[in-house]
Amino acid sequence: MQFTSERRFDDGVIEREFTLGEIPGTLWTPPSPAPAPLVLMAHNNGLPKGEPRLVARARRSVAYGYAVASIDAPGCGDRPRSTADEQARADLGRALGAGEPIDEILESLVGSLVERAVPEWRTTLDALLTLPEISGPVGYSGWTAVGIRLAAIEPRISAVGFFAGGYVPRAQREEARQITIPLLFLLQWDDEGNPRQRALDLFDAFGTQEKTLHANTGGHTGTPWFEVEDGNRFFDRHLK
Amino acid sequence: MQFTSERRFDDGVIEREFTLGEIPGTLWTPPSPAPAPLVLMAHNNGLPKGEPRLVARARRSVAYGYAVASIDAPGCGDRPRSTADEQARADLGRALGAGEPIDEILESLVGSLVERAVPEWRTTLDALLTLPEISGPVGYSGWTAVGIRLAAIEPRISAVGFFAGGYVPRAQREEARQITIPLLFLLQWDDEGNPRQRALDLFDAFGTQEKTLHANTGGHTGTPWFEVEDGNRFFDRHLK
Repeated sequence: MQFTSERRFDDGVIEREFTLGEIPGTLWTPPSPAPAPLVLMAHNNGLPKGEPRLVARARRSVAYGYAVASIDAPGCGDRPRSTADEQARADLGRALGAGEPIDEILESLVGSLVERAVPEWRTTLDALLTLPEISGPVGYSGWTAVGIRLAAIEPRISAVGFFAGGYVPRAQREEARQITIPLLFLLQWDDEGNPRQRALDLFDAFGTQEKTLHANTGGHTGTPWFEVEDGNRFFDRHLK
Repeated sequence: MQFTSERRFDDGVIEREFTLGEIPGTLWTPPSPAPAPLVLMAHNNGLPKGEPRLVARARRSVAYGYAVASIDAPGCGDRPRSTADEQARADLGRALGAGEPIDEILESLVGSLVERAVPEWRTTLDALLTLPEISGPVGYSGWTAVGIRLAAIEPRISAVGFFAGGYVPRAQREEARQITIPLLFLLQWDDEGNPRQRALDLFDAFGTQEKTLHANTGGHTGTPWFEVEDGNRFFDRHLK
């Protein structure tokens, strides 16, 4: 893990860019030198890790005492896209324009992104946990499909906050039953591109006994800011 | 409004029983003499206002700086039941025992309780707002059916937190569309006696643009304590 830049915000938060092999990442840590619990903040494939709203979320979690890490997984953010990714995205655009069904295209596109993202998140987690400024335990926040797979196979993750707005491949809808750690599921009630009933069915499917759904009116990008606070308080209940 | 007893808790919360005509009520206020915003805490018909979990909820809201008031509405708590109430409750018990449909019995029983409770809540609100220790604004927390009717006709109520676990008469399901104030709707995902889909349909029907659903796993009485905190933070966003 190589740190390539460092920035300090006026509230003391330290933001460092890193690379880990081909993986580009960002780590935000509190000003205190005490080892902090870790939140993996996985944005979905459409946004780069430097997107301002994601950075604001990360900084807010640091204010709660967490170290927060994000990476651009393969095909995400500024990472190069494979020919298959490009083809799938072109197919998606065409189908959306023609008003045709998109589930099978998303199944292929997102399924492939998940397969490639999860090993890189585990590699990143290995490296992060060697740092003296990070102590664990570990939470995960964001992209549902990747988080389901990670939580299903990764015993070091203790609590997960998922955002319902995104396609979840059939394999992960099945794996959801294997999740037994505390879970907060965040749904935008009027999300244009993501069927509400599918999200409710997924919430129902999660195997954990301690799961909470937060739904708010509004579209895909309309999540109210107070949910960032609620997400951090959720982690406070389970990671501290 | 006649205060009939006063108790002080070691955290400074003052609990006073009162009567207002035939209405028995309880008012909890903070130790500070500054006028406080008010939360009307309406338990549903099966519980008396002195039930320990309700008292604990009220005291917790006082810790957030609210005055909290509760009453036993007609046919609720220790109030005498009408012959029709007794008949409906007997019919309900019989139908439940026989595994027969109960919707029409509940429609009659709860519909009548709502009709009688709402005027008493308004009378209570009138009296509470004359007290120097209460300033408004006013929130409402608890029994959904009564709260829908109150919020629909009572402009002094600024935000509502409803608990989904209870029968909502058809008239109030219609009136839900008239609610335009901020709303937090609390659902127990596995509530034995209250169909989940009906609660989700009701959440969808509320007319307000700023509504939030919190759902947790578990049965009717299993609401986790952190929802009390979330409810107070919801009021903090809208009543302060």
